[in-house]
Amino acid sequence: MLDLRISSLGTYLPRRAVDNATLVASYPELGERDLDRVGVVSRGEADDDEDVPYMAVRAARTALERAEVSPEALDFLLLVNWSERRYVPDLAPRVQALLGANKAFAFDLGCACAGFIYALAVAHGYLQNPRFRRGLIVASDHSRRRVRPGSRASLLFGDGAAAAVVAAHVERGFRLVDYELGTDGTRHELMDVGPDGYLVTHVRQREVNELAVSSLVRAGRSLLARQRLNFGDVDYIVPHSGTAGIQSLLADTLSLPREKILTNLPSVGNVTAASIPTALEHFVQNGTLRAGHRVLMLAVGVGWQYVGGLVEL
Amino acid sequence: MLDLRISSLGTYLPRRAVDNATLVASYPELGERDLDRVGVVSRGEADDDEDVPYMAVRAARTALERAEVSPEALDFLLLVNWSERRYVPDLAPRVQALLGANKAFAFDLGCACAGFIYALAVAHGYLQNPRFRRGLIVASDHSRRRVRPGSRASLLFGDGAAAAVVAAHVERGFRLVDYELGTDGTRHELMDVGPDGYLVTHVRQREVNELAVSSLVRAGRSLLARQRLNFGDVDYIVPHSGTAGIQSLLADTLSLPREKILTNLPSVGNVTAASIPTALEHFVQNGTLRAGHRVLMLAVGVGWQYVGGLVEL
Repeated sequence: MLDLRISSLGTYLPRRAVDNATLVASYPELGERDLDRVGVVSRGEADDDEDVPYMAVRAARTALERAEVSPEALDFLLLVNWSERRYVPDLAPRVQALLGANKAFAFDLGCACAGFIYALAVAHGYLQNPRFRRGLIVASDHSRRRVRPGSRASLLFGDGAAAAVVAAHVERGFRLVDYELGTDGTRHELMDVGPDGYLVTHVRQREVNELAVSSLVRAGRSLLARQRLNFGDVDYIVPHSGTAGIQSLLADTLSLPREKILTNLPSVGNVTAASIPTALEHFVQNGTLRAGHRVLMLAVGVGWQYVGGLVEL
Repeated sequence: MLDLRISSLGTYLPRRAVDNATLVASYPELGERDLDRVGVVSRGEADDDEDVPYMAVRAARTALERAEVSPEALDFLLLVNWSERRYVPDLAPRVQALLGANKAFAFDLGCACAGFIYALAVAHGYLQNPRFRRGLIVASDHSRRRVRPGSRASLLFGDGAAAAVVAAHVERGFRLVDYELGTDGTRHELMDVGPDGYLVTHVRQREVNELAVSSLVRAGRSLLARQRLNFGDVDYIVPHSGTAGIQSLLADTLSLPREKILTNLPSVGNVTAASIPTALEHFVQNGTLRAGHRVLMLAVGVGWQYVGGLVEL
């Protein structure tokens, strides 16, 4: 099979960020203990005009510029999004038109927080077709509109978008070595969005955390076993942001030092499907991720989906 | 690239059907002229318990039995649906669990009426991966819940589901020769669903019809040109059901006899994403489609998407 490479990444964070002091001032019932557990210091909050297509287009333009690819050269565009959904139409065609990606076919994927890796796998499939040489994956979510103001979840979630130009027949960028896609529909009813438009968790948070960690481990173990690798052979793990608690539990479960887990959760919040590409971009830009590094991406999504992707830079 | 074949098809229609006499008795403002234009005689109407996963599972079981594939042997499951959408979770994992397709990863695709062919293309990509040998595509929609009772649209739409087992490394069934995926996001705002949950068309019906036909022709022409074929080289065209008016206009535009266009629109209504697989199943079962036939599937989807797929039996 032809390799998929992530040629470039771009992100967009809302112009307005909300820090903990501001949140606690508005909602005094949110205490220090909540803040510590969640582990987020500041998170972007989209204004009304910063909707999913708006953020997607801006992240996409940065990624396209960095890859020196024009929008017209894109063969496909996959928009990953759960927080702004319509019956019809899909939102991806709107992004396609705004970008001027006239040649690209475009459609939406959901998969909640597992969406970026699901989209990478879809793109990998398309790129096997000699007609398609490059595409764009954009994850864009304003998850803060789906959490009740003043709830603990409002501490956690941030809005934002991240885009990746993916291509075959290129020599540079993260090479997708392998991916693992898992679904456990028996855990379908763990979380959903109620009639008020806000996310509801139907089990105890602790149960979600434990399931999340065991699922992340399961996805990673299965992928690494196929590649005859261990967790110790990986330079870094970039998990879907989850919560600070989930990330700690993951490190403990794998007996890995915390420094092996790369996250920008404290500064952007849980940006759901955009978590992984946002973190990858951050740590490429600051020089942490460099040529030769092997990185394991792991995510879970409400549904229940658990996924992994192994990339090499 | 490895071939994708549709090993088998299965459909599910609601236990209750609504005929024209019943509709006109309830809504006397619907006249003969409306009935003629729409071209539907009877359409299924799902009961409350016949939701999208329910119909999907039943269509899937039929398809799996016919292919002699057990649910546990499925590597993936793609659910195409626009009429029952949630923020989270995707509905596909629910179908995965109900079927007992424990090994399959599962997620949703929208793409409105173009969804089946988009899903075929996604499946074709996955099947290039030697890990994945067979999957299931299910289109399941209860579109009648998205149209205002007594509207002209209520004459047109029917509820139902259709499933296709798709596989590589098999010798029988429709072989996917090529596909064409098009998106024109500049026509994004043609139709959507209003706050009351009902479909709204923002332009004149005539404009939709003309755009639909020119888009179907464009998708077909582009695909056939790549294969060095003409419309005359195709035994049958199976269009997304659309309306009788769109089907007539399509035949006229291509100067093809009406018999070349295979549709079961009159008996099931416009079953949106399930249209094409429902028609394929119908005409395989009644012996119209036989070994040696070359069939061009064409569809448009609100968004705006226009797609084609060429299969050989």
